Amino acid sequence: MLEELKKSVCRANIELSTRKLVIYSWGNVSGIDRKAGIVAIKPSGVSYSELTPEKVVLVDLEGKVVEGNLKPSIDTVIHLELYKNFEAIGGVCHTHSINATAWAQACREIPCMGTTHADFFYGAIPVTKPLSKKEIENDFELNTGKSIIKRFSKIEPMQMQAVLTASHGPFTWGKSAECAVESMVVLEEVATMALRTLVINPKQTKISKDLLDKHFLRKHGDNAYYGQK
Amino acid sequence: MLEELKKSVCRANIELSTRKLVIYSWGNVSGIDRKAGIVAIKPSGVSYSELTPEKVVLVDLEGKVVEGNLKPSIDTVIHLELYKNFEAIGGVCHTHSINATAWAQACREIPCMGTTHADFFYGAIPVTKPLSKKEIENDFELNTGKSIIKRFSKIEPMQMQAVLTASHGPFTWGKSAECAVESMVVLEEVATMALRTLVINPKQTKISKDLLDKHFLRKHGDNAYYGQK
Amino acid sequence: MLEELKKSVCRANIELSTRKLVIYSWGNVSGIDRKAGIVAIKPSGVSYSELTPEKVVLVDLEGKVVEGNLKPSIDTVIHLELYKNFEAIGGVCHTHSINATAWAQACREIPCMGTTHADFFYGAIPVTKPLSKKEIENDFELNTGKSIIKRFSKIEPMQMQAVLTASHGPFTWGKSAECAVESMVVLEEVATMALRTLVINPKQTKISKDLLDKHFLRKHGDNAYYGQK
Amino acid sequence: MLEELKKSVCRANIELSTRKLVIYSWGNVSGIDRKAGIVAIKPSGVSYSELTPEKVVLVDLEGKVVEGNLKPSIDTVIHLELYKNFEAIGGVCHTHSINATAWAQACREIPCMGTTHADFFYGAIPVTKPLSKKEIENDFELNTGKSIIKRFSKIEPMQMQAVLTASHGPFTWGKSAECAVESMVVLEEVATMALRTLVINPKQTKISKDLLDKHFLRKHGDNAYYGQK
Repeated sequence: MLEELKKSVCRANIELSTRKLVIYSWGNVSGIDRKAGIVAIKPSGVSYSELTPEKVVLVDLEGKVVEGNLKPSIDTVIHLELYKNFEAIGGVCHTHSINATAWAQACREIPCMGTTHADFFYGAIPVTKPLSKKEIENDFELNTGKSIIKRFSKIEPMQMQAVLTASHGPFTWGKSAECAVESMVVLEEVATMALRTLVINPKQTKISKDLLDKHFLRKHGDNAYYGQK
Repeated sequence: MLEELKKSVCRANIELSTRKLVIYSWGNVSGIDRKAGIVAIKPSGVSYSELTPEKVVLVDLEGKVVEGNLKPSIDTVIHLELYKNFEAIGGVCHTHSINATAWAQACREIPCMGTTHADFFYGAIPVTKPLSKKEIENDFELNTGKSIIKRFSKIEPMQMQAVLTASHGPFTWGKSAECAVESMVVLEEVATMALRTLVINPKQTKISKDLLDKHFLRKHGDNAYYGQK
Repeated sequence: MLEELKKSVCRANIELSTRKLVIYSWGNVSGIDRKAGIVAIKPSGVSYSELTPEKVVLVDLEGKVVEGNLKPSIDTVIHLELYKNFEAIGGVCHTHSINATAWAQACREIPCMGTTHADFFYGAIPVTKPLSKKEIENDFELNTGKSIIKRFSKIEPMQMQAVLTASHGPFTWGKSAECAVESMVVLEEVATMALRTLVINPKQTKISKDLLDKHFLRKHGDNAYYGQK
Repeated sequence: MLEELKKSVCRANIELSTRKLVIYSWGNVSGIDRKAGIVAIKPSGVSYSELTPEKVVLVDLEGKVVEGNLKPSIDTVIHLELYKNFEAIGGVCHTHSINATAWAQACREIPCMGTTHADFFYGAIPVTKPLSKKEIENDFELNTGKSIIKRFSKIEPMQMQAVLTASHGPFTWGKSAECAVESMVVLEEVATMALRTLVINPKQTKISKDLLDKHFLRKHGDNAYYGQK
């Protein structure tokens, strides 16, 4: 069932490891078949070197396992919350990549301080509000998902394919599982650059709206003119 | 004698090198057979590329060599002190990994600033008290071990499988030699994240007790629900 | 047409990837045949692993494609502006390498704080003036090129083979495509050292003119005495 | 002539590259045959991948080439100055390794902030005094060598096998060419740790004399008890 999806989700998970965004089993990628309403996701606690398409778990949008012998990722509920609310996305990714996680732990959004960031993300990478004691104790993972959705009430998810969950780490997404991983790679890169920019110039802030628009829109949307399309 | 133990201790020591936690012969791992009361440990000053199970040294809990032609690690006394006082542990690891050592040199505990840390360590990574002149001059290694035990008088070693010895570096442990290495890998990762978190937000402190409990306990103890178990 | 040039430009682009100065398709190198007045440059959005000499695009100095099926790099106009104004150069390179980009994002020139820098660059690495709203909205890439030329009104481009474009990233050049890449490698290295120098000693400034002259001129110009020439 | 020495010097130079202490031809190692009074050293500007024992240059202690078709390293005079003044040493090494160079550029000695440092270097890594305009303009390399010797007037070179030349970078030495490289590897490691220690605790200073003595002397001198000897 959904063999191509499982293969691409397997490949995307393994890419987390080859790109050094994860150690052990510290990250997960999923992909969705929108027609079938089914999500393929990494099994919980399985290392990337052991992952095969057969081990990828299929769940429906309510989280019920529809295929697979293994338990799905502990973060499945968060992925599902994103799929249910962000209709244009086809893949979700979560890691504890070092520099993006450092920003999440610092509970600071990553300001857009250069064109590398603006080429991919349309503004500062947002941070969620910390969860309350009650939200932590009951349905923690679901509430983490909800805190992302709340934070995006006025943000277009296809223009900002990343978020930092406070004191936790990054989630990214995209048109597919593969694209969600690309968002994570770029996020880690701009998180690194932003940290070092602050070391050089602690008072540096975001770039102008003009420069942000120019760079983001030359690569995204109807007037894009980057690449071979 | 104890062939399986020697093999696993050899493998665990070599893993220090492949994970880039050590250069030259700057780290050591041991494992214990509790029934036999015998510890298998790396020989002193031998590089990881030359290590074989045959070269692993067997000592009893008093430090007497019971098998092997080489001298055991100079830190053997510290390992033994941990085995004698922490009854649940089966392996011990010591390195000079860069970021954990930087915290040890700074004589600062690593605050738990995020869930990556909380998933594995139940609170701040403690630092030992500096040794006195007398403790340094006589039985230095033994006193290093004792300073760890003293620091853990109110800490449960299976909930905090790491310590920083002041001005020196990290020791970690776990159920086995392999687990002790995993503790070291995770310690180095969270030490790196914590350092960078401070660069971004120098006033950042620890996460809430609620979030710490949630993350540590969803992976550890009777109510854990992470992984395939 | 110009097979050797296309091969060397292809090789130089791939070197960006092997030297870890780029991810995805985030950088470009070009080379010029001064006699023919033709520039060979990387196609836009193509990854380094897929690049072949046949995919390298040939353009004239006005930017008209004279050979190739792919669109040239989006930064082609900037490369051309450099070739038209810096007559001695034979190659141009652009990346978003992490540390040089951090300095560009900080909008700070990289002071010459040591002989590693002085061996290659004759003074501080200059930063361009930020573009105005008007310059960003119309002919953005051309205006980026012009901002570099303006910044170099009193700088000899063969003595300073690098620039940081404000809030964007580095451009480098040299006698050939290969040399332009070498300039980029060295720039990233000195950018890293300079950042860490500031961490150790935030008040450190540039070295003396005497030491700068000694180091730059023992490797460059008529009185050079480094190497085998 | 001196085939074994040339081979070991060749190997030691190549190790600089495999240990990532150098790029291009940015470092050099030499070794001496004390009986013959002849030094084997890397040729100037040759990359490590092209280096063979045949290309290693032999010079006498006055710097006269006694074998080899290539020009010796531009830093040969500095190496010779060290051999002439530090009688116990058998090898010298120079690089621009990033973290040690950052300390040299910051013109700050590296304080001994932990036992990793104390295990190898008996105190703070000294920095030379900056050269005067006159010393830079005439016999620059010789004066660099002399500034090291002057800095070591009260330091025992076999207890401190490293120095930072102000605004330049590190030189290290040891019993052989291979040992000089080991000193450089360790220097870069402790330079990295010291920098990060300062980030965590900007007020951290050196460890106690007691701890320094304990660690240095358990590995060095007549009462050493580390390793298999």
